[in-house]
Amino acid sequence: MFTELLPFWTKYWYHVLISIIFCIFFKLFYEVFKKGTIFIENNRHNFNTLNNTVEQLKDINQETLENNEEPVLPINLKHIPYVYKRASEEEIFCRASKFYKIVAARRTIRFFSPDPVPKEVIHEIIKAAGTTPSGAHTEPWTFVVVSNQKVKKQIRRIVENEEEINYKKRMGVKWTTDLLPLRTNWIKEYLTTAPYLILVFKQIYGISPKGKKKIHYYNEMSTCIACGILITAIQYAGLVTLTSTPLNCGPAIRTLLGRPLNEKLLVLLPVGYPAKDATVPDLQRKPLSDILVEID
Amino acid sequence: MFTELLPFWTKYWYHVLISIIFCIFFKLFYEVFKKGTIFIENNRHNFNTLNNTVEQLKDINQETLENNEEPVLPINLKHIPYVYKRASEEEIFCRASKFYKIVAARRTIRFFSPDPVPKEVIHEIIKAAGTTPSGAHTEPWTFVVVSNQKVKKQIRRIVENEEEINYKKRMGVKWTTDLLPLRTNWIKEYLTTAPYLILVFKQIYGISPKGKKKIHYYNEMSTCIACGILITAIQYAGLVTLTSTPLNCGPAIRTLLGRPLNEKLLVLLPVGYPAKDATVPDLQRKPLSDILVEID
Repeated sequence: MFTELLPFWTKYWYHVLISIIFCIFFKLFYEVFKKGTIFIENNRHNFNTLNNTVEQLKDINQETLENNEEPVLPINLKHIPYVYKRASEEEIFCRASKFYKIVAARRTIRFFSPDPVPKEVIHEIIKAAGTTPSGAHTEPWTFVVVSNQKVKKQIRRIVENEEEINYKKRMGVKWTTDLLPLRTNWIKEYLTTAPYLILVFKQIYGISPKGKKKIHYYNEMSTCIACGILITAIQYAGLVTLTSTPLNCGPAIRTLLGRPLNEKLLVLLPVGYPAKDATVPDLQRKPLSDILVEID
Repeated sequence: MFTELLPFWTKYWYHVLISIIFCIFFKLFYEVFKKGTIFIENNRHNFNTLNNTVEQLKDINQETLENNEEPVLPINLKHIPYVYKRASEEEIFCRASKFYKIVAARRTIRFFSPDPVPKEVIHEIIKAAGTTPSGAHTEPWTFVVVSNQKVKKQIRRIVENEEEINYKKRMGVKWTTDLLPLRTNWIKEYLTTAPYLILVFKQIYGISPKGKKKIHYYNEMSTCIACGILITAIQYAGLVTLTSTPLNCGPAIRTLLGRPLNEKLLVLLPVGYPAKDATVPDLQRKPLSDILVEID
């Protein structure tokens, strides 16, 4: 075989060489081109993660424009005087200080009493969360309040299954080590003992009365801000909660609760009274000097 | 040339054929493999955008583990009884209702009075925001409070320049149309009239006292929740604000304020008294039935 090929190599070696060199160059050029694209891609991501969102919004813009969509709010929206009564500086300081004391007493509670809480209280709390500001006043949130014991059990099953995988595989040694002092694991008893579970969904887009897509600007940020007000409302009322973000449980819980595809689970908050023997980790918060920078 | 090659083709056509077939198969296999990877990648992205974060965290885990990093909190963190005094159901309802009334009176204000506000009030407000729960108690936030008029002017210049581009190019017709009823544009007078600008930064990672990277789990969510408490604190004190997310201004403002690379600007809040002639759009909030779903 080899001897048979010899005349070919001696006669046509430069053809073969040119082919090989061409292939190598082509491959090199392709790699450089690919790396360049990835580099540009990465840089764009690093320097400005918002560009992506803007691009997506532009696409939806185009879509909605083609449908001759109207603005979300009435175009002739009235602007009215803002009624405001200014308090004295002392009064303002007193109120600010009182509010700080109320929220400073808040702790994340993992042990709940099964005692029932009047539904009217939960309504006031959700109403408070509903006053949150949102991008272009789109109010991109849904609060699902579960008190049904069967549904709570199903949610607990979904969360515990996923959390076991999270703790054992997804989160890695560092994360679980960081959580060790808090004594958390994948067993979430509070999901069935707390009288209410509030599941906060962000609406990644809305549906107009005419059935068309409505853009929800900054829907995740707005809904997280609503969570801040929700947590504060719970604390102000004198109830307790735990701010949890069930990793990987979103789609299963969304399906279980029959929520539409435009809604994504952000936060799960059990709400109720603390158990009589509830404990909390002896945590300290950062002093003001660690979180505040003043430029006078 | 062609006639010269003829004997070669007749003699070695099967070698050439095998080479070509091999090349085609290699190319096909490569494409299928690549597509498969992309498909898996896309699916992973669609079904679970968090996986990426988890992967990144794993990398940092590995890095920190190799550095023999300790957990963020002391491993022998004490757990202490949670001191709680349960109020009557009536009292809890009253408080929840009172809180709702306070936050329902909040409006986003675009017209500020230049009247000064005591700095102590701002301190109480930032302290309140600092009580926010955070992933593994990492407290991943920095609040930069600017009262210096020169710096406020520089921030205004950055924001107005970017906002002009946002309104004219980046946001698209739909977004600007949606904002039309709110009468906003790229002129942001309040940035220089309000006595304070609070710039809320998320810390995408922390630096341990030994100078090592510290993972900040859910830093954006935690910081947005802190914004919710911050906005509520401002309202409770009797001051006004505007929740703004200056699109594309983050890096320039971060540099101007001399903040480190691990901090990213999330929200900009002017804080002060409203102007005497301040107006607000005559907006209605969604009724409770539109935002609450009850599963009893």
